[in-house]
Amino acid sequence: MAMSLVAPITVRKFSGETSIESPDLLAVEEPLEIRLGFGPVDERQQRSVSVTMRTPGHDQELAMGFLFTEGIIQRPADIVSCRHCVQEVDKEGNVIRVELHPDVVVDWKRLERNTFTSSSCGLCGKATIEAVQALTPGPVTSDFTLDPAILHSLPDRVRDAQRAFAYTGGIHAAALFDAAGKLLLVREDIGRHNALDKVIGAAFWNGWLPLSQYGIFLSGRIGLELVQKSWMAGVPLLAAVGAPSSLAVQMAQTAEMTLAGFVRNNRFNLYSEFDRVQQTEAV
Amino acid sequence: MAMSLVAPITVRKFSGETSIESPDLLAVEEPLEIRLGFGPVDERQQRSVSVTMRTPGHDQELAMGFLFTEGIIQRPADIVSCRHCVQEVDKEGNVIRVELHPDVVVDWKRLERNTFTSSSCGLCGKATIEAVQALTPGPVTSDFTLDPAILHSLPDRVRDAQRAFAYTGGIHAAALFDAAGKLLLVREDIGRHNALDKVIGAAFWNGWLPLSQYGIFLSGRIGLELVQKSWMAGVPLLAAVGAPSSLAVQMAQTAEMTLAGFVRNNRFNLYSEFDRVQQTEAV
Repeated sequence: MAMSLVAPITVRKFSGETSIESPDLLAVEEPLEIRLGFGPVDERQQRSVSVTMRTPGHDQELAMGFLFTEGIIQRPADIVSCRHCVQEVDKEGNVIRVELHPDVVVDWKRLERNTFTSSSCGLCGKATIEAVQALTPGPVTSDFTLDPAILHSLPDRVRDAQRAFAYTGGIHAAALFDAAGKLLLVREDIGRHNALDKVIGAAFWNGWLPLSQYGIFLSGRIGLELVQKSWMAGVPLLAAVGAPSSLAVQMAQTAEMTLAGFVRNNRFNLYSEFDRVQQTEAV
Repeated sequence: MAMSLVAPITVRKFSGETSIESPDLLAVEEPLEIRLGFGPVDERQQRSVSVTMRTPGHDQELAMGFLFTEGIIQRPADIVSCRHCVQEVDKEGNVIRVELHPDVVVDWKRLERNTFTSSSCGLCGKATIEAVQALTPGPVTSDFTLDPAILHSLPDRVRDAQRAFAYTGGIHAAALFDAAGKLLLVREDIGRHNALDKVIGAAFWNGWLPLSQYGIFLSGRIGLELVQKSWMAGVPLLAAVGAPSSLAVQMAQTAEMTLAGFVRNNRFNLYSEFDRVQQTEAV
């Protein structure tokens, strides 16, 4: 099983005009195929729904987070089992089979497209947001508020909690935190979406959804899909080290979710629902 | 047509405990659907092959770069026309129709999966690389070499050339440069893969492929797909501000492509084919 987060390599390190060979570590990237199964494993009725390039580890959480945020499953009871295919020995632990409860009805048409963006009602930002909106119970409802000092503290604290970043300098993180700033989950992956799926999948399996009393912190930029996944999980506040896109902000406004970007160096910007962060007006 | 790179917004900017409302700009994100067409437009035989979230602008280059790096088209003559669908008024310029020459044979099965990673010969890093290898003419052949001073200069020079980054702080770049360090193309997009597709699509349409006397510079991290696209374009050197993944390095080694990561602050690391960068051993 390819379960290591990091892999060794010899690099040539340049500083100015001089260079030297040196051992180093890389973040591991391997494909993961998610298959949905129906009925006993020996009948082998199954269908591949996704192949993603991911960093191995927490694969079950990644699969469950993906299926939940794509609207395929709603609750832990929808899952009968979730495990690596041991029959596929040549695939090195890179296939996950999720057996669903017989009562779960899968919308295969949407899964085939594997994206909300190819909505039949049009192809623009507005239509994209409406397609996601149709899957949610509505805007996020929560009385969650946060002291800005907690947001300022998150980049350093999440980085300290990352196992692989310290070695490779090149792996994303997603973290779940509460109003007191406590980090409940930190997950790493070379893919930003995968890191978030791992956090949401873990929370899903723990029965913590909707996450109305928690915030999520991301180490990168905020595109539409990251807001979509957070909305599906009912998160009232999404914060990230990087910038949000225009569509990410539009969706956060629709979802009534607080969006914080550029969270670094004791600064950040709020893009929506400002009132969830306690404010002292600058004079 | 949604052709603006940036969109205005009012944000609340926090610095420490104090905050103030302020106008700001966001990088625009909108879906783009790529359709392949056959025969005259009025017959309307077409098939959707991809929907990607992208920053509007250089959409034709994005479409051509995507189709080339996925192995669908090989030369400019394969394309009869490439234009926005004007009939789809509700989609705001977010649909591109590429009409292929009747002689082009499309491998629909692979396109449907829309990824090299779900190769039938196995699902692991090795199989993934072999699937891409089968589409290329072999390892990159080039006598291209580079002075390390040119690599050191690229981050600042590419950033200066970015139109949208200066305003938003949140948009990726890909740049094509020659052995003298001249920047021939710089393209921006919220998606790293899209920025690279735009550069390769422009080079493809200009008849510059294979790019055996050029390097490509990326503003982010280097995952497998970015190496794959560069290999398809015949690039001997790929450099980036961020870290490469394990599979990106493995593919660069197979492609005999020079891979440089962490290109910033007058330093960088080489991960493969060290000899293309002129070396002075550290004493």
